[in-house]
Amino acid sequence: MALDTVLVRVDGALDAALDRLIMLLEIPSISTDPAFKDDCERAADFLVTDLQTIGFEAAKRATPGHPMVVAHGGPDAEGDLPHLLFYGHYDVQPVDPLNLWHTEPFEPVIEDVAGQKVIRARGASDDKGQLMTFIEAMRAWQEVHGELPCRITIFLEGEEESGSPSLVPFLKENAEELRADIAMICDTGLFDARVPAIVTQLRGLLAEEVTLKAATRDLHSGFYGGMAQNPIHVLTKIVADLRDENGAVTLSGFYDGVDELSPDLKAQWDSLGFQGDDFLSSVGLSTRSGEAGRSDLELMWARPTCEVNGIWGGYAGDGFKTVLPAEAHAKISFRLVGTQDPEKIHAAFMEHVNARLPEDVTAEFGNGHGAPASVMSTDDPAFETARQALSDEWGMEAAFVGAGGSIPVAGHFKDILGMDAMLIGFAKDDDAIHSPNEKYDVESFHKGIRSWVRILGALSGAV
Amino acid sequence: MALDTVLVRVDGALDAALDRLIMLLEIPSISTDPAFKDDCERAADFLVTDLQTIGFEAAKRATPGHPMVVAHGGPDAEGDLPHLLFYGHYDVQPVDPLNLWHTEPFEPVIEDVAGQKVIRARGASDDKGQLMTFIEAMRAWQEVHGELPCRITIFLEGEEESGSPSLVPFLKENAEELRADIAMICDTGLFDARVPAIVTQLRGLLAEEVTLKAATRDLHSGFYGGMAQNPIHVLTKIVADLRDENGAVTLSGFYDGVDELSPDLKAQWDSLGFQGDDFLSSVGLSTRSGEAGRSDLELMWARPTCEVNGIWGGYAGDGFKTVLPAEAHAKISFRLVGTQDPEKIHAAFMEHVNARLPEDVTAEFGNGHGAPASVMSTDDPAFETARQALSDEWGMEAAFVGAGGSIPVAGHFKDILGMDAMLIGFAKDDDAIHSPNEKYDVESFHKGIRSWVRILGALSGAV
Repeated sequence: MALDTVLVRVDGALDAALDRLIMLLEIPSISTDPAFKDDCERAADFLVTDLQTIGFEAAKRATPGHPMVVAHGGPDAEGDLPHLLFYGHYDVQPVDPLNLWHTEPFEPVIEDVAGQKVIRARGASDDKGQLMTFIEAMRAWQEVHGELPCRITIFLEGEEESGSPSLVPFLKENAEELRADIAMICDTGLFDARVPAIVTQLRGLLAEEVTLKAATRDLHSGFYGGMAQNPIHVLTKIVADLRDENGAVTLSGFYDGVDELSPDLKAQWDSLGFQGDDFLSSVGLSTRSGEAGRSDLELMWARPTCEVNGIWGGYAGDGFKTVLPAEAHAKISFRLVGTQDPEKIHAAFMEHVNARLPEDVTAEFGNGHGAPASVMSTDDPAFETARQALSDEWGMEAAFVGAGGSIPVAGHFKDILGMDAMLIGFAKDDDAIHSPNEKYDVESFHKGIRSWVRILGALSGAV
Repeated sequence: MALDTVLVRVDGALDAALDRLIMLLEIPSISTDPAFKDDCERAADFLVTDLQTIGFEAAKRATPGHPMVVAHGGPDAEGDLPHLLFYGHYDVQPVDPLNLWHTEPFEPVIEDVAGQKVIRARGASDDKGQLMTFIEAMRAWQEVHGELPCRITIFLEGEEESGSPSLVPFLKENAEELRADIAMICDTGLFDARVPAIVTQLRGLLAEEVTLKAATRDLHSGFYGGMAQNPIHVLTKIVADLRDENGAVTLSGFYDGVDELSPDLKAQWDSLGFQGDDFLSSVGLSTRSGEAGRSDLELMWARPTCEVNGIWGGYAGDGFKTVLPAEAHAKISFRLVGTQDPEKIHAAFMEHVNARLPEDVTAEFGNGHGAPASVMSTDDPAFETARQALSDEWGMEAAFVGAGGSIPVAGHFKDILGMDAMLIGFAKDDDAIHSPNEKYDVESFHKGIRSWVRILGALSGAV
């Protein structure tokens, strides 16, 4: 059977695959620090060369920042054969605080931890280990069958850890070249250590900053207290009023476009057995706040939120200064779901603030940038096909899950390329991404490669 | 007439008095900066020596910080002759930003400004010029009459600008020696450039700091938003709820001990013609907030307030960090009037906070230190006598006024020595105390000396 032969090849070539990953991990491609600019180029070059050895037409593509890697391979899409776009990123987070690492971050080692082998290095999990699962799957397929299972475009970014400044312009300029039937993004994790997952909905994000101004200078509270507006006081009322006593957001029209979960998805999420109590107790909390009558996962993945992320104004030093400050500030963010419109919510936020400004207090707003939620069309049979393939590999029913945080690239694929994405990854919660001693389980790497073999086999009808 | 002779003497000796003030101003007695410790000693020595030349028994008295100067003079109090305590301070504020000074802060000059002579130097107004008005009045009286008009104790502090750490212990240790019939404090101003004033009531102050804590670490809003308590959000509700929509403070029992103004005092304050609009427009405001139905001066001097002086929590840097912080903080102060009890209000504040804490959020409180308001017994005839003397000197009806800010020494005299105080001073609003280019009008200095001559003459029955 075409698939089994490839899986056997993956198993036999695992050590060689680990060696290639280790070579990539040795390159300190920290995108946010200009000192590592050449290393980012080297990492891109490494990938271009490696993809060429598998038969991809691969090239480094310049941007104002670090280069993209774009590679095309496999037979032309025709008939039932799909064209797939794969996304990963070759840049990594900085390594400080360096003194908390037990090994050198760019001298990868394979360690035995409680009977499990792990690859220890910066980027092992985020995202070099993950992107190499896909490339190794392609290599095994190519080596066994002499060609790829379908048309495949690989798109690797070098600025994901530094805000992706070049991503949107690059997608717009190269839309025709990059558009495919569906995208696959490998930058997420398993649902838990045993259950594989496909992220099919991601919350959007609207970030607001507001500055309230009153007097032209800080005032002495002994003279002006009780007579002059105190912008901190006005701000606290504005922030406090953003949520009602049940935790619901009060902005006008905020819940427009927030749909109820389908019974199917709700049942699937409920079956995952998420331990909300453990999730809270791990950070010292005992009680879930927020909207009543919703499951924990529903709150995290499918309900919108409003959180104040920062507030400041007046005197914050030692002792006391009896001042009425001239200004007060807050940063507030909204997580968006369904078809909530960031622009409408930005307008409703400004209206909420302006309606609470007394005489003599003015508000200035940040640019209120935002992105809507991404909800994939899981009725595309590719999602169920991939889910089944994942379930077969892991021996556990794979889940369609949501993501509470933001993965902007999925939204850009949808907006700019008109393409849904399946987010499939094999990271574990304890991988310590962005932290010292990052690791990736050899099991994640090995079964990750095998997962892609199964998924691509299933999607191209090769099973 | 005994009084007129002394006034003539004051006029004739004005230049010599200015020379002595300039010598004192040349000593950079900045109490808050240890580099000027010796200068503080020198300023105290200068005053001790000067007071001895007038016949005072004067001495520098050590404290853990800068020394006090205590001097006794005049005939023993007997019959109708009162014993008066005079208070001033010889230390000054720092001078930075030095580049904003037009002259050297410790090289005093007498300048002509719009036809008025002013003494320009750090401390010219606050408080060396003011304290010397009293000493020069004593000198003139002594020189004309060969003795002082009554028993006088002079008490000069060297730490007023650095929080008066030694004041309370010193008053307690030397209570018997310092207790007199009434105190006179020269550290305030005229009501306006023409109208002299005696401050007869000072608001108290209660300073609170509160820290709210929730999770054991900052949380990612993509995962914990809407599920975990956000201490900033809880804090905004607590602060916003401190005042109702009419500006009244909501703490339980807060207005206990807040009395209505007597009709007499209200009429007197109303007659002062305070220009509240100018007061607000000078800092860019147009509309008085706060309690309705109260005059501006009543709000400033006779009504309690609640103001948030500082708030902070979460991320305040550039850009965005979608964090739920582990902690949030606020500094809040209350101005107190009448017989409001700081301890009861501290308890009510803690109750207000605790009643608004959801599960998983805890509050830590600062020490909630406070001092009640000081309201002098103006039915002591000394107040009316002094008011009349001031009116005679300035040719304008002197006013009994309040003070919106805090002058803690008046409260300490009342609490520790059981003594009321008259706060009489000659500073003008444009003296720029605590700021670059501090000045004191020669008119303030000259008429200030003459005012004390008249006040002491009247109080000792020498008119």
